[in-house]
Amino acid sequence: MMEDNQKKCIELAERIYDLDVKVYESIGSSLGRTFTDDRQTCVENLTKLMTLRPQGHLLRSELALISNMARTIKDEEIKAEVMAEYASILKEVAKLPEGFGKVDILNKKRAKLNTVRMEKKFKKGDHLVICIGRTQGSAGNDIGFALADALHINYYDVEILQEVLKRLEVENDPKVNGDKDQEGLIEDKYEKHFGEARGIRQKLHEFNRYHGLKKEDAIFFNQSDLICKMAKEEDFIVMGRCADVILTNNRIPHISIFITAPFEQRVKRYMEVNDLTLKQAVRELKKMDKKHNDYFHFYTGMKWGAAENYDICFNSASYGIEESVEIIERMLNKIPGVSWNKKKEKKNQ
Amino acid sequence: MMEDNQKKCIELAERIYDLDVKVYESIGSSLGRTFTDDRQTCVENLTKLMTLRPQGHLLRSELALISNMARTIKDEEIKAEVMAEYASILKEVAKLPEGFGKVDILNKKRAKLNTVRMEKKFKKGDHLVICIGRTQGSAGNDIGFALADALHINYYDVEILQEVLKRLEVENDPKVNGDKDQEGLIEDKYEKHFGEARGIRQKLHEFNRYHGLKKEDAIFFNQSDLICKMAKEEDFIVMGRCADVILTNNRIPHISIFITAPFEQRVKRYMEVNDLTLKQAVRELKKMDKKHNDYFHFYTGMKWGAAENYDICFNSASYGIEESVEIIERMLNKIPGVSWNKKKEKKNQ
Repeated sequence: MMEDNQKKCIELAERIYDLDVKVYESIGSSLGRTFTDDRQTCVENLTKLMTLRPQGHLLRSELALISNMARTIKDEEIKAEVMAEYASILKEVAKLPEGFGKVDILNKKRAKLNTVRMEKKFKKGDHLVICIGRTQGSAGNDIGFALADALHINYYDVEILQEVLKRLEVENDPKVNGDKDQEGLIEDKYEKHFGEARGIRQKLHEFNRYHGLKKEDAIFFNQSDLICKMAKEEDFIVMGRCADVILTNNRIPHISIFITAPFEQRVKRYMEVNDLTLKQAVRELKKMDKKHNDYFHFYTGMKWGAAENYDICFNSASYGIEESVEIIERMLNKIPGVSWNKKKEKKNQ
Repeated sequence: MMEDNQKKCIELAERIYDLDVKVYESIGSSLGRTFTDDRQTCVENLTKLMTLRPQGHLLRSELALISNMARTIKDEEIKAEVMAEYASILKEVAKLPEGFGKVDILNKKRAKLNTVRMEKKFKKGDHLVICIGRTQGSAGNDIGFALADALHINYYDVEILQEVLKRLEVENDPKVNGDKDQEGLIEDKYEKHFGEARGIRQKLHEFNRYHGLKKEDAIFFNQSDLICKMAKEEDFIVMGRCADVILTNNRIPHISIFITAPFEQRVKRYMEVNDLTLKQAVRELKKMDKKHNDYFHFYTGMKWGAAENYDICFNSASYGIEESVEIIERMLNKIPGVSWNKKKEKKNQ
């Protein structure tokens, strides 16, 4: 078996050497030649590269160099012949049991939860759940909202999740199901944005509501439960809330996307959107970045915004809102402008 | 003009309120209702949301909440009607001059250099240049190589670039164009991998070659010039070398991709590929990460691997080599498995 492999490598090395000679002769310049030693020495070196795994990438470089050269051959017939031999060698090299240093990086557990190619991978009944993290000012919210609209699926941000939770609470708890409390809930929705103070009665009510847990933790756990429940029932986009980590921990398929943009670009946009001075915008963005970072790290132990913690990161400054949506649709294997679930779309129109 | 805008906002607020009522009546539960105050109060609040820009995202949440609810309407006819009105309101809101807080994040200068939609944006004669940065062990090199092959374009990594530079030097400098030196160059190619020592003669030669510059700097500048020159002449993929920043600084269109994977996953793969112990692999990867980081930062002043410094970041552990290639092809608007430039492919086969 071992010897078979060795024989195969030598045979391939010879084919590679001969291909190089052919390319060199066709181009008619010694500059087109990758191997200038005698045949035996070169074949020995190439065989070494194939059997020594850490050097696998060097073999690839040699092959790429030959094919780069071959593409400059002017005679179309010879070029076609050479490229066919090159493709055939590549195939053989890839087939070498330990050759080519090509060990896949795929994390099977993670991939199993990944939604990008759901048609291929997922069971019927799994849903298209897209978790979007984003830095403040990167237009991540706008992209998420536009994407939900383009895909005709639901959109959840922190306000909507809170609203849904409040409604579920009202539904389940007859004590708060009075008209007075209903009004209170609606007031509540605007209060933090229009600056009204919360009364003592509200605070007491909160203590009961969260079973003595710290309010923020109780909210986080309630939201987490809700996100997991929804992910089993419908397709949707969820903004933030560590939803990607929560779903991964609960082994529920999803795709995680992080949207950001260079700080200067975010500052520029934040100034414009919120009518702030440069100094105000910088201070505010730094504060928000820290807040997001702390929240994510507190509940997940992971680094917020680090590329290895998401499936894909996206620079919105490179694409803008509309084009970002298009690219994500293409990535998801949806044709931009066409709802991914045609049946649904038909129903809605 | 100002008053027109105000009138438009009130009109839209009324339509939003009425839509909510309709959804609520169709679902038959007060839980389906977003606005529970009387009509006048709600319309006033909504108008406020539309005119106060920082609260734009709250308006979006209200709209999303209504449409999420509407999607649960069982009567298909009513649902279609409601969704049409929702879509129409969305369009009107987006048209508000300063409404909806939707200021694009696009950096026009950056976007102009971005290759993802080159058919739309670029002049004839611009080339498809893909710059790939990657962490060690993330299989970024394998993905780059496979992608070049899938797109039928050239592939350049540090070894190939150095080889090309050496050849150009030989071509331009008759002094080193002797047989002896040619042999020296080829030896050189393997020496650092097979551990042979460099002689004094070689060092003197290097001093002349780099015009007294520090060798690393001279190499960097030579490579930079070569990359810029090539980008004006051909389509290709280039690995590392700060190529993205170099091309941006020279205003040459390209797309920048960063490929990484969680550290544990990279360690696992690195152990397997290089036959190392866990301890060795961890040490080696940390060393390589630092080296890449220092190199990138030294020549660009930017943070290596930070999502905002690339167009797209990719977690190879989520997809593996083959699927990563497919997704990048889709992103580039190429159909996987079909060469982007059909004419070229035909010629090559």
